Amino acid sequence: GETIRATLFPGDGIGPEIAESVKQVFNVAGVPIEWEEHYVGTEVDPRTESFLTWESLESVRRNKVGLKGPMATPIGKGHRSLNLTLRKELGLYANVRPCNSLPGYKTRYDDVNLVTIRENTEGEYSGLEHQVVRGVVESLKIITRQASLRVAEYAFHYAKANGRERVSAIHKANIMRKTDGLFLKCCREVAEKYPEIQYEEVIIDNCCMTLVKNPGLFDVLVMPNLYGDIISDLCAGLIGGLGLTPSCNIGEGGICLAEAVHGSAPDIAGKNLANPTALMLSAVMMLRHLQFNDKADRIHNAILQTIAEGKYRTTDLGGKASTSEFTKAVCDHI
Amino acid sequence: GETIRATLFPGDGIGPEIAESVKQVFNVAGVPIEWEEHYVGTEVDPRTESFLTWESLESVRRNKVGLKGPMATPIGKGHRSLNLTLRKELGLYANVRPCNSLPGYKTRYDDVNLVTIRENTEGEYSGLEHQVVRGVVESLKIITRQASLRVAEYAFHYAKANGRERVSAIHKANIMRKTDGLFLKCCREVAEKYPEIQYEEVIIDNCCMTLVKNPGLFDVLVMPNLYGDIISDLCAGLIGGLGLTPSCNIGEGGICLAEAVHGSAPDIAGKNLANPTALMLSAVMMLRHLQFNDKADRIHNAILQTIAEGKYRTTDLGGKASTSEFTKAVCDHI
Ligand SMILES: CC(C)[C@H](C(=O)O)[C@@H](O)C(=O)O
Ligand SMILES: CC(C)[C@H](C(=O)O)[C@@H](O)C(=O)O
Repeated sequence: GETIRATLFPGDGIGPEIAESVKQVFNVAGVPIEWEEHYVGTEVDPRTESFLTWESLESVRRNKVGLKGPMATPIGKGHRSLNLTLRKELGLYANVRPCNSLPGYKTRYDDVNLVTIRENTEGEYSGLEHQVVRGVVESLKIITRQASLRVAEYAFHYAKANGRERVSAIHKANIMRKTDGLFLKCCREVAEKYPEIQYEEVIIDNCCMTLVKNPGLFDVLVMPNLYGDIISDLCAGLIGGLGLTPSCNIGEGGICLAEAVHGSAPDIAGKNLANPTALMLSAVMMLRHLQFNDKADRIHNAILQTIAEGKYRTTDLGGKASTSEFTKAVCDHI
Repeated sequence: GETIRATLFPGDGIGPEIAESVKQVFNVAGVPIEWEEHYVGTEVDPRTESFLTWESLESVRRNKVGLKGPMATPIGKGHRSLNLTLRKELGLYANVRPCNSLPGYKTRYDDVNLVTIRENTEGEYSGLEHQVVRGVVESLKIITRQASLRVAEYAFHYAKANGRERVSAIHKANIMRKTDGLFLKCCREVAEKYPEIQYEEVIIDNCCMTLVKNPGLFDVLVMPNLYGDIISDLCAGLIGGLGLTPSCNIGEGGICLAEAVHGSAPDIAGKNLANPTALMLSAVMMLRHLQFNDKADRIHNAILQTIAEGKYRTTDLGGKASTSEFTKAVCDHI
């Protein structure tokens, strides 16, 4: 088989350590990937208006596949947020987060098996805000037919390709009749093309209540940007937190940028204490995207087994293992 | 003592039955309240532009205190939503929802003891939306200094008056820097005046994750309209749902309109099956507002005891009791 080139953004804080874990696991599993590593720059690159270098974006555009660790946007003015720049520049229109209860890792819920698909480019994240008069500010939420159709298409395509039964569109169209109304209209149009997939619409407040009462009722959820931000974190909480949940961004031209969505945890950076699970599981999503399904399954099972056995859990999960001990345990299971 | 006049909106669907339960309980407890009952009209009242009559709004303005059951806005054009009309016309600027685990009623959480305070008049509920060009729509979120200060003042006042320790302001100011930024600025200003109350700021996605992992970490939460809508329902889910959570709206000129926030459940209306708990607990909030603390305590304890004993639970809680059996049990406990 051929070797695939993929971009790796180890990111900041604990990023490099957990990226190292992924590299080791991929080596042991014999994944034919050659990494092109890119770090966040130390100066603003005028071509990206952020600390991300133009070359790093070009790398993703060229390889069409990448893996990203946590990136903390440096504080200060005159530059854009790293995460938002990536989303905008690479047209990362869908953020996909499968959320499954981990066997053996106990939370209050043991039946979570859902996927959130978040529109990732517009809505409340337009960045358009201004002061109308002193003491009165407004922000614009933008919903477009194009972006809504695109993410709805992806959600139904994903549901079908992954043997899922139902897509729930999450909205607040009883209040935002035009914006969320357009989003729903697009979802309905796409739903028509997938008669084999059930379709329902759930108001966001009700959705959140149902998620905490009975998350097993949901399958695939698709929603505008901010609702996706909120609900995907809520769902992560159900299974134990952002340290355990993978994510992957689908972008224009077939880009797939897998991403650990937790923070860079500067307090434990470099101490060999970080939990690489979210980045490893994100890397597994990347492998599935590349159709390396056998490798993906092997690595995925090794991660699940290591967590289920409980002997080598990292401190965030109440264990005592270091990053490298956990990583070694996963490698041993492969 | 004198008799207080209070407005009662029994509302639709199960509303009249559960309002009847409250009246019985108040009678048995000897609450000196005389109800002024107002129903939703059968025609649009041009003075309110909704099915709410002008007289019913005047009644609340005059009495400054009221209790409201569920109201389903009739479908059709040319009139405003009932709930939104009430909020606008009565200047109901803060929606207060205490959320406490009910002893003996088991959910996945047993340590919930928090209060959500929601700005109730602006934000994403501005109603300002339009199509920019075909396929591109926008909605305006409005945040004002006046409304933000007012709800923040109320939250800190509430925290202090109720022996609470901390106020958390919930926001997404990392994205909506100006709108949510102004909201936070106002909260900070008010926080300065309450050095005895701790103050923190929590991003909404993180807040929702923490709520499902460890709701015991929160005390009083204050937030803009939509976040309040979402989070208050999420919190209701933690303790069992909207059928168990009271709410009360604070309005201009000292108005207090207590409200059951669940739906009108037309499917079981008139069948003596509805759970009157949320409306009863809301009525208790109204009593506390009127400083009828002894009566409030007695009724509150009777409700909690009836639910804890479990013998007369309504069907929504897995029991077999009718509305009137549950109500009688509460009356017997008073
Ligand atoms: C860091 C922040 C800008 C980001 C967002 O709001 O989208 C984060 O919460 C996420 O979900 O990736
Ligand atoms: C019915 C609806 C308009 C309302 C809202 O969104 O505020 C409801 O969800 C609530 O919380 O009272």
